[in-house]
Amino acid sequence: MSLTLEELSVALKATLHGDPATLIEGVATLGNAGPGSLGFFSNRRYHQFLRETRASAVILAEADREECPVATLVMDNPYLGYAQAATLLNPEPVASPGVHASASVHGSAHVDSSAHIGANAVVAEGSRIGAGCYVGPGSVILEQASVGEQCWLGANVTLCRGVQIGKRVRLHPGVVIGADGFGIANNGEAWIKVPQLGSVIIGDDVEIGANTTIDRGALEDTVLEEGVKLDNLVQVGHNVHIGAHTAVAGCAAIAGSAHIGKRCTIGGAAAIGGHLEIADDVHLTATSGVPNSITKPGVYSSGVPIQENKIWRRNVIRMLHLEDMAKRIKALERKLK
Amino acid sequence: MSLTLEELSVALKATLHGDPATLIEGVATLGNAGPGSLGFFSNRRYHQFLRETRASAVILAEADREECPVATLVMDNPYLGYAQAATLLNPEPVASPGVHASASVHGSAHVDSSAHIGANAVVAEGSRIGAGCYVGPGSVILEQASVGEQCWLGANVTLCRGVQIGKRVRLHPGVVIGADGFGIANNGEAWIKVPQLGSVIIGDDVEIGANTTIDRGALEDTVLEEGVKLDNLVQVGHNVHIGAHTAVAGCAAIAGSAHIGKRCTIGGAAAIGGHLEIADDVHLTATSGVPNSITKPGVYSSGVPIQENKIWRRNVIRMLHLEDMAKRIKALERKLK
Amino acid sequence: MSLTLEELSVALKATLHGDPATLIEGVATLGNAGPGSLGFFSNRRYHQFLRETRASAVILAEADREECPVATLVMDNPYLGYAQAATLLNPEPVASPGVHASASVHGSAHVDSSAHIGANAVVAEGSRIGAGCYVGPGSVILEQASVGEQCWLGANVTLCRGVQIGKRVRLHPGVVIGADGFGIANNGEAWIKVPQLGSVIIGDDVEIGANTTIDRGALEDTVLEEGVKLDNLVQVGHNVHIGAHTAVAGCAAIAGSAHIGKRCTIGGAAAIGGHLEIADDVHLTATSGVPNSITKPGVYSSGVPIQENKIWRRNVIRMLHLEDMAKRIKALERKLK
Repeated sequence: MSLTLEELSVALKATLHGDPATLIEGVATLGNAGPGSLGFFSNRRYHQFLRETRASAVILAEADREECPVATLVMDNPYLGYAQAATLLNPEPVASPGVHASASVHGSAHVDSSAHIGANAVVAEGSRIGAGCYVGPGSVILEQASVGEQCWLGANVTLCRGVQIGKRVRLHPGVVIGADGFGIANNGEAWIKVPQLGSVIIGDDVEIGANTTIDRGALEDTVLEEGVKLDNLVQVGHNVHIGAHTAVAGCAAIAGSAHIGKRCTIGGAAAIGGHLEIADDVHLTATSGVPNSITKPGVYSSGVPIQENKIWRRNVIRMLHLEDMAKRIKALERKLK
Repeated sequence: MSLTLEELSVALKATLHGDPATLIEGVATLGNAGPGSLGFFSNRRYHQFLRETRASAVILAEADREECPVATLVMDNPYLGYAQAATLLNPEPVASPGVHASASVHGSAHVDSSAHIGANAVVAEGSRIGAGCYVGPGSVILEQASVGEQCWLGANVTLCRGVQIGKRVRLHPGVVIGADGFGIANNGEAWIKVPQLGSVIIGDDVEIGANTTIDRGALEDTVLEEGVKLDNLVQVGHNVHIGAHTAVAGCAAIAGSAHIGKRCTIGGAAAIGGHLEIADDVHLTATSGVPNSITKPGVYSSGVPIQENKIWRRNVIRMLHLEDMAKRIKALERKLK
Repeated sequence: MSLTLEELSVALKATLHGDPATLIEGVATLGNAGPGSLGFFSNRRYHQFLRETRASAVILAEADREECPVATLVMDNPYLGYAQAATLLNPEPVASPGVHASASVHGSAHVDSSAHIGANAVVAEGSRIGAGCYVGPGSVILEQASVGEQCWLGANVTLCRGVQIGKRVRLHPGVVIGADGFGIANNGEAWIKVPQLGSVIIGDDVEIGANTTIDRGALEDTVLEEGVKLDNLVQVGHNVHIGAHTAVAGCAAIAGSAHIGKRCTIGGAAAIGGHLEIADDVHLTATSGVPNSITKPGVYSSGVPIQENKIWRRNVIRMLHLEDMAKRIKALERKLK
């Protein structure tokens, strides 16, 4: 699809400097962009690419405009502009409505006539698939699950019994929603299973990355509020509650009954303990470990960066004897008083 | 399903204080419980909910009984009582025996007539599915794999060639058992594959969480003894041996040839190195890193908790210079001697 | 399959000491090997097993030969010899060509006549499956994806739209290649999706472990060069580039736009930040955290090993006050000057 710079400036609410009739066919990085391409400049690191760009136009902030040799679309958040322009210029393919001949849809399921059910997908008893949904090949929607309108489920997704998915939700391949939480009680000899009787409620406009797992609640429900974004291979334990517009990067682990606020960002491979609360607007950098509640908004960290192995070997031994080191400092201070 | 308090007290071996005829229809949290519900009290943090509960009865320990305004079922381990009561009050739906028309079962496979094979599931050549099993939609049982009686396999589970699953095993959606372990040998220019010729043996009453992966052995077998419980997204490398009744929380990584004892608990996102031994009754807290064997039972930890980012930035720099700090303390001590 | 020691010595380019006609039927660990078995000795830890082995022959280095009571195949890298011998002695079963009756292959897809498409697999519009490929049951090859010759895809693998897989690539069950990267832009109120317009290019002889995920690029492609080996549950973000013959162990997380060199080894559960470069021949030990570029080859680490919980509790508190400790040392030094 192609749009003129004028059409784009209106859609992005950006100020255009350049020929309004210039035709844009796609977005590209500044380094790769050629005629017909729209670049964007949101990272000072790529400064040199801006000066040398061969793009037809660039989305950027006013302050950077004079460095740009070509037409510009000026707006405060060029990265947002890039997202919007890329969406306009690359409309998603629309799947044809209907159920593939190889799919298995139970007679009691309700599949909207505008929905697409892919090859070898399974829609079980009593489940509901809303208008305009795409259910990818090999996906399995189990009993009494419901999927709101305009959802997109990639291939080999699994929705377990009774889970409820909002509208415009995107679930990437391999996602599992509503498997049993890790509930076990010890009888002195063995672990007894605690039945997981709650469900999972996913709000509107949530997106969930490939092979991520979200467990059903033990007694109440696991909840992701609207606009939550999860990356790949994230684990969300039973009875977790994630507030609206919180984003969680890949491989993060969120233990059961954690309650995470709104508008948080959780870095990759972070580990959040169970039965704790994280306030709204908390930002955790990658590999943060969170054993206790966080009551104040802010940025928190705990990762330890790499060193050359031979230096690390010496430092890590000291790390295991910090208590002793602290006592020796104390003793020295006493002597010198 | 509903049971009287008398029936529950017998089943749970709990002492009843209250009307034996009271009908219980389900379990609930103390805060949410209403008439007909059974609550439980096992965490002092929820003390206030006990005093104000509207449950018909509460499972609790003798010491807490006088704080409870309603009928009680007294037992030493109320959390276990809750697990047992919830199981009794919520019997699992029984799947109808038979093979779904869309499933593909090889002529040489043996599927017990009481087993349920779901839609679009695949049971390959020479494999065996025991009595009373449930094989969910989209699951794939590859050649010569065997599944003992009364197992439950969720949707999109994969059992690779020749793996052996015990009785009453539960495998949640997306589980992969028996994929090749990570065996590679370097020929100076490239990695050569080491054939993975062992299998996986899963004991009775094991439960494995969604998208968890358990690799087959290189020469001998990977083994999970009876009663082992794994959470979601756990990685179990080739030739690992996990002792009976050990429980492993989500996102833990267990490298090849690790030998873990019985009755251990491994916290979430823990990382256990390869070719080491962990004794029976070892407990690792979340995010523990285990590079060497653990020979004594006990509780072990290594996680570093978060701090505010600006404080962490200062501390983490010091962490990278601990060796130097230790030397300076030593020098000070010498001067003061 | 069985081979004589002579045949093996030729194939492995090893020096034989013993009867060339001895028949070998398989490989085994030194401890388990009996007559007809070939053992190997590459780890000094298993010294005692060598002295007592009942194997028909052992692959080992010249220096260890005199300790061995049986025939030997001498070569510099016995572990490589084991890999080669195991491959020769255990040829993989060859799947019969053809499309299973329950598979769904789109009319516009090109499946080579020598390829095997398993039960309930899906091959979508415009995709290509090369000669000699095995596509396991339940796998889904989406639109315009292409798979080179002699590839092996386990069960329930997902290849998303347009991804390109080289020759002799092995993808284990549950792998997802080409799901959308985690691209989101904030409009001040909510996250807006950044369309992921790039693809994934996988080189020849790559192997990828179970349930690992590799995201498609945002504007350009995510690339794994030839001979890369990934273990299970690894996350590879969008626009990552992994150099030839790099090996990544289980549960490692690689954030978007990381550029990793050739011949690197990344330990299990390592976490690599986004938008950074790692030089060729870098080796990261398990649980390393990499927030910045690594410009020099070498071995790097940052893991913190476990301690007994009660000792760790005291040390970890000190870890959170290192800045203060450093200042107190400084003050002591000043006083003593």
